[in-house]
Amino acid sequence: MASKGPQRSWIVLSSIVVFFFIIVVSLNSHSLKLFSRLGSDRPQAQRNNEYRAPRSNVWADLNPEEVTDLLDYLYTYEGDGGLNLTRNEKATAWDNSIASLEVLTPNKTDVLKWLHNPSTTPQRWARVIVNKGAAEKATIHEYMVGPIPIGSETQILPLSYCHNSGRHYVKNPLPNYLDIINWFSDLGDEVSDIVEHLLAEVANPGNLSYSPPFFALSRTAQFNNGSVSNWATINSPGLAFDAFALLPQGVFCRFDITGRESKEWKIVEWYYNGKLYNSTDAFRQAVKNPKFERLPPNIDGSWTNPEPLERGLPARDILPPPVVVQPAGSRVQVDEKEKFVSWMGFDFYLSTSQATGVSLWDIKFRGEAIIYELGMQEAMAHYAGNDPMSSGQVWLDSLFGMGLNLYELVPGYDCPTYATYLSTSFQMGDKAVQRNNSICVFEYVADYPIQRHTATMHLSISKSTYLVVRSVSTVGNYDYTFDYIFYLDGTVEVKVRASGYIFGSYNSISPDELGKRSPGYEYGYQVHELVTSVMHDHVINFKADLDIAGTANTLVKVNVVRHDSEYPWDGYPRKTMKLNREAVETETGLNWPRNAGSMYVVLNNDSRNIWGEKRGYRIAPGTGMGNPPHLTMEDGSTALKKAATWSMKDLWILKHHDDELKSTSEYNNMEPEDPLIDFEKMVDGESIQQEDLVVYFNLGTHHIPHSGDIPNTLEHTSSSSVMFIPHNFHDRDPSRESSHGVKLEKDESGRSTVKYFGAKYEDGFTVDVRDIEPDLRNRSKNQGFFANGEGRVGLEPGAAILPFGA
Amino acid sequence: MASKGPQRSWIVLSSIVVFFFIIVVSLNSHSLKLFSRLGSDRPQAQRNNEYRAPRSNVWADLNPEEVTDLLDYLYTYEGDGGLNLTRNEKATAWDNSIASLEVLTPNKTDVLKWLHNPSTTPQRWARVIVNKGAAEKATIHEYMVGPIPIGSETQILPLSYCHNSGRHYVKNPLPNYLDIINWFSDLGDEVSDIVEHLLAEVANPGNLSYSPPFFALSRTAQFNNGSVSNWATINSPGLAFDAFALLPQGVFCRFDITGRESKEWKIVEWYYNGKLYNSTDAFRQAVKNPKFERLPPNIDGSWTNPEPLERGLPARDILPPPVVVQPAGSRVQVDEKEKFVSWMGFDFYLSTSQATGVSLWDIKFRGEAIIYELGMQEAMAHYAGNDPMSSGQVWLDSLFGMGLNLYELVPGYDCPTYATYLSTSFQMGDKAVQRNNSICVFEYVADYPIQRHTATMHLSISKSTYLVVRSVSTVGNYDYTFDYIFYLDGTVEVKVRASGYIFGSYNSISPDELGKRSPGYEYGYQVHELVTSVMHDHVINFKADLDIAGTANTLVKVNVVRHDSEYPWDGYPRKTMKLNREAVETETGLNWPRNAGSMYVVLNNDSRNIWGEKRGYRIAPGTGMGNPPHLTMEDGSTALKKAATWSMKDLWILKHHDDELKSTSEYNNMEPEDPLIDFEKMVDGESIQQEDLVVYFNLGTHHIPHSGDIPNTLEHTSSSSVMFIPHNFHDRDPSRESSHGVKLEKDESGRSTVKYFGAKYEDGFTVDVRDIEPDLRNRSKNQGFFANGEGRVGLEPGAAILPFGA
Repeated sequence: MASKGPQRSWIVLSSIVVFFFIIVVSLNSHSLKLFSRLGSDRPQAQRNNEYRAPRSNVWADLNPEEVTDLLDYLYTYEGDGGLNLTRNEKATAWDNSIASLEVLTPNKTDVLKWLHNPSTTPQRWARVIVNKGAAEKATIHEYMVGPIPIGSETQILPLSYCHNSGRHYVKNPLPNYLDIINWFSDLGDEVSDIVEHLLAEVANPGNLSYSPPFFALSRTAQFNNGSVSNWATINSPGLAFDAFALLPQGVFCRFDITGRESKEWKIVEWYYNGKLYNSTDAFRQAVKNPKFERLPPNIDGSWTNPEPLERGLPARDILPPPVVVQPAGSRVQVDEKEKFVSWMGFDFYLSTSQATGVSLWDIKFRGEAIIYELGMQEAMAHYAGNDPMSSGQVWLDSLFGMGLNLYELVPGYDCPTYATYLSTSFQMGDKAVQRNNSICVFEYVADYPIQRHTATMHLSISKSTYLVVRSVSTVGNYDYTFDYIFYLDGTVEVKVRASGYIFGSYNSISPDELGKRSPGYEYGYQVHELVTSVMHDHVINFKADLDIAGTANTLVKVNVVRHDSEYPWDGYPRKTMKLNREAVETETGLNWPRNAGSMYVVLNNDSRNIWGEKRGYRIAPGTGMGNPPHLTMEDGSTALKKAATWSMKDLWILKHHDDELKSTSEYNNMEPEDPLIDFEKMVDGESIQQEDLVVYFNLGTHHIPHSGDIPNTLEHTSSSSVMFIPHNFHDRDPSRESSHGVKLEKDESGRSTVKYFGAKYEDGFTVDVRDIEPDLRNRSKNQGFFANGEGRVGLEPGAAILPFGA
Repeated sequence: MASKGPQRSWIVLSSIVVFFFIIVVSLNSHSLKLFSRLGSDRPQAQRNNEYRAPRSNVWADLNPEEVTDLLDYLYTYEGDGGLNLTRNEKATAWDNSIASLEVLTPNKTDVLKWLHNPSTTPQRWARVIVNKGAAEKATIHEYMVGPIPIGSETQILPLSYCHNSGRHYVKNPLPNYLDIINWFSDLGDEVSDIVEHLLAEVANPGNLSYSPPFFALSRTAQFNNGSVSNWATINSPGLAFDAFALLPQGVFCRFDITGRESKEWKIVEWYYNGKLYNSTDAFRQAVKNPKFERLPPNIDGSWTNPEPLERGLPARDILPPPVVVQPAGSRVQVDEKEKFVSWMGFDFYLSTSQATGVSLWDIKFRGEAIIYELGMQEAMAHYAGNDPMSSGQVWLDSLFGMGLNLYELVPGYDCPTYATYLSTSFQMGDKAVQRNNSICVFEYVADYPIQRHTATMHLSISKSTYLVVRSVSTVGNYDYTFDYIFYLDGTVEVKVRASGYIFGSYNSISPDELGKRSPGYEYGYQVHELVTSVMHDHVINFKADLDIAGTANTLVKVNVVRHDSEYPWDGYPRKTMKLNREAVETETGLNWPRNAGSMYVVLNNDSRNIWGEKRGYRIAPGTGMGNPPHLTMEDGSTALKKAATWSMKDLWILKHHDDELKSTSEYNNMEPEDPLIDFEKMVDGESIQQEDLVVYFNLGTHHIPHSGDIPNTLEHTSSSSVMFIPHNFHDRDPSRESSHGVKLEKDESGRSTVKYFGAKYEDGFTVDVRDIEPDLRNRSKNQGFFANGEGRVGLEPGAAILPFGA
């Protein structure tokens, strides 16, 4: 129809639906060669002093031998007529092919048995995702294959037991990757005259020696009633800094690619500068009209560069900042092969999955189980805006692979240089994907002590250190940093931080309009000449399978309530407060309480500490920015339907079932009206008193990006967190026995003495830290700390002990 | 009446009211000798490279010369018949004497003039507190004396302009310290037989070579209608670890010490084991009865010792933990004399006051004023419990002196060893009080980067460092750590952490009752054999006088709201969300919104960034534990009356007035029905649109101590915080220009290059940090970071850029 655009602006309109498809169908297959990297000869495997886990990691990813055997088994399987699999390199949209292969988490019931009796090893099974194209309707099937190693018992079963839909498959409305690529490419050619006319300046940013492609972004495809239709938009690629998300151009088209016959596909309409055009021809005709109002192009430049444009400050900013060191080596013990970590009484195993990234298993503190499973389930970003893209953009990122998108961490920047770096691997069909150094484990020292008290006759202070397990999922424009943090007293924290490029919306405002309402005013802020930020809710769901002093647990709300009382000793009514304990009886969703007026405590009614209090852990908002929020649309959103109802409350308390593995499936958004796992069905009113409890909780933020998000969102103000805090779990604060500290004591003669606890300085244990951290005993002589009578310690012995308080 | 107790158990029943009095009347007077320590020959004064503040500190504490001159002036003043002052060393309850002397903060109006025009120096005045005992009714008077230096213009005026009560004095129901001491001492003798009978085991814990005193604690005295009556209780002193607050003995007496005639004072009744006794004789008679049920004594021991009782862990806990170092020296510039701090674009001054501790003044970021004044106003701890003490214990700690109780900080434990330590001093009557090294200022490096993004062709990461100004107020049993934290992007955070000994309540439960409800069940937990914890609300009030892009400011609530919309491009109604902006019109109190559904932004309607957005700062809950709460009794508490109504909401937004200096007075609780400063009167409906705004906000926690608070409350889970975050204040994230980072870039040939930004490693600037933090360029060769094609950076050039997102 239209003339070809110039060579330099060849256009590829790829889209989110394409990427989506890449995950589902893995094409590349030169994978087995990589397996050797996963074996025992991994370069880092022996680094950590050959520390060995007490037990094997039953949640571990499939090892190369298992993968090889499984692939053989699957390709040669002949039961029920076989799977009719085509190897990835030859598979088309009309074939069946393996999309991914990973371990199927064993039943908790079986693992608990094994933990108590090692002879009862839980069966090992694999989860296999198969793209079924060799049928009239393309589908994605899930199978469970096991037990492994492959033997006479091994079988392939539909994986439906953990899907409360009862199904083990979803429709695959996008099976034909190559056809879609080709169609979008043809479309690019077809409309390149229009794009060239509108966006000539953006076609080649100028600094690159090869032609950058344009591309279209689409929000998650809509699959209503089997149709695949949605809006796409043209963004400049932002190749210099990968800042495509900041470079929308204000050109939108709605496409329909229903079915597998690309000749049926079409662009339905165009949207530009507030006007809809009901065909490509109509849009072309308008554009070519000399009176057509052409919007200015949104051009990439140094403004998207996270590197400093200039050093802004005259003072001392060229000096390197403080840095953390380990003067006597690591205090963290890691078995890299079994992915087992031990630190100051904490022990746990790690595993990774393609969809959800890192999970922690069998977390023990001082030998006692506290959390059986802790891991991310799904990361949602729900946008709202004033253009066809922004208004309905909803991402459920597990489909893109929060595990698959773990990349290398940078020592000294992402984590301290002394951290232990672990690698991960995933099996996409025939192809193994390896991510070196994509998890780090390190101890850090807080800027504050964990305990301190200045008393009349002594002073004591203890260091606060903590262990961090970190990974970063880069999902397109955004980086999610996931931290699992462990504190000396038994507290466990889960924290998410965001960085990366925000999604912008194209909004042109002329200079004389500056300060007036921009078109995107109701959804964000103007953050660059032609870019408005787009408000969005991040809601990130986690599973915490708590076992607090056993598996029989109860959630008690300890409410701080207003109370009027006339006490016998008062003689008048008093407006005061008291506690009101309330066990939650059945499965339910909860929100963080108003004015922090309730504590949520998971405890075992039948386990008490030495003082008779029920041993528990408190679930509380942690050290993120205030309380983590849930989705603004508390009654659901049009875009999500039933795909993510876990997002509507802050946390959920459910009874554990072996067949309720997760809060969601990465394929939930393929059939959002009837998702593979409907979370609402899991909250079905079961009694939860003295049962095995699972908490699903949300982190996230209502993100309204402003100028400070350009070029990248900052991590210090984007964090959210939930903490699990011992609550009468021990008889006494256990950090006393692992914290390093100092005690300054004044004797009756008025002399202060300094006594360290923790590191055995006294026992001839000398480390470099003495150079770094001056010995207080010497300081007290030379520089007068606490020996000079001016600290509180310096009060005269026998002086009145002043009974004042806080 | 009764026989004297044995010598070893001499009893001093002192009380909170006594301590209270100590603050008001300073008796000791060997103070002037100490002044030399405050002068220019302070040992640390020249430490910080002789960095000098650009302007003098007009908020600075009185210097020794000013104090000398003022004392001379006051003692010789003859206007209006003179003040009739007696020097502290000779003063009795029947005399007038100076209680304290400090600078009177200058009017903001005058300071702003001076900041713009240095020739208009604001007048310097002092605030003088005088105990007036030489009258029929004892009072505490506040005066303003100035201008200083003393000259012909100098005068003494009643300090009432900043008290909305119109008064400059409060009743002093407790003027006669010595009489009270003596009366309690006599009382101790009088009841020592009872105490000996009930508490023989506690009378001398055994390890101390001198006899420890018992003492009584009282909650804040009640001053209803001029009477002074309240409950006191006997606690073991806990001399070994200063753990008196954990050592209640369950013995209570109500005293009445109204008036200055000690012969009128009396013990009104006793309370023991749930029974009231209406006289000391009645109690004695009951106690001496052989059938009297004697409660077990609550004995001090190693359980109150914060030092580890044993090293609990077999692994690596004897190694020293990580430590932070500054490889190339400090990047913080401090003028110790003027208490001026400069770091990465932030500049501010510090001052201290006896009642409230550290305040920050004229906080600028990149040369632009953002906060005129930032400081603590009052720290409340409001208890509720099941005994006469716990049920009504309410502390308003500024009366005890949050500044006066700043003690020395321990390098390497309270703050890094490399911190700059500042000293503070206060003038109590004739006596100067010096606190060496009681404020620390240091830069720290976060465990996470401030920015990161892994892109297809590059990766960039920037370090997150921040500046901390820290002081610790030890008020009796509790330590409050106050942090003012500054981030590279212009964010300012205020954070409070608590540690120290909780207040316990005596509750005996027999071993077979363990696990049943203890008597304190409605107010806390059993945390030791005979001790129940006592629930309490910490509410700590701060003033932030914001000047965001000028003094004409408006508070806008940016609400994230549920929204149903039918967009032109959709063709169907959509359940989504949008923003709704709402300027707050008049002075009011606000709570943190449900589900984080509003952002509170202080902005200037007439100042816009380059993109046309109004320049603002957002006020948000920071990185404490969730949202900071306010007082549970939202309609007020019996104990507080009108003394602290600021505690009933999370934050308040008011119009600045030169005569509204503070939210409260440290003497508010002396006349709680008609306090010197009634906060409610300040919230009087004035329009606050485009006015000079002041925010009063609360930090704190509902603290329900559990076994993990024994021996001390832990700081990592006790923090609360509010942040002031730039919100469209700059045109772009300013941290880009001061953050140190690294950029890894892949070229078309597939090679990665490493480029540092920040420290000028390239320019021959070599520092030890290279040893500590390995050069990534070398690592990329040797250890494969990012050069091995397995990070995202390693994708082939020209590979499809996948348009996926978050």
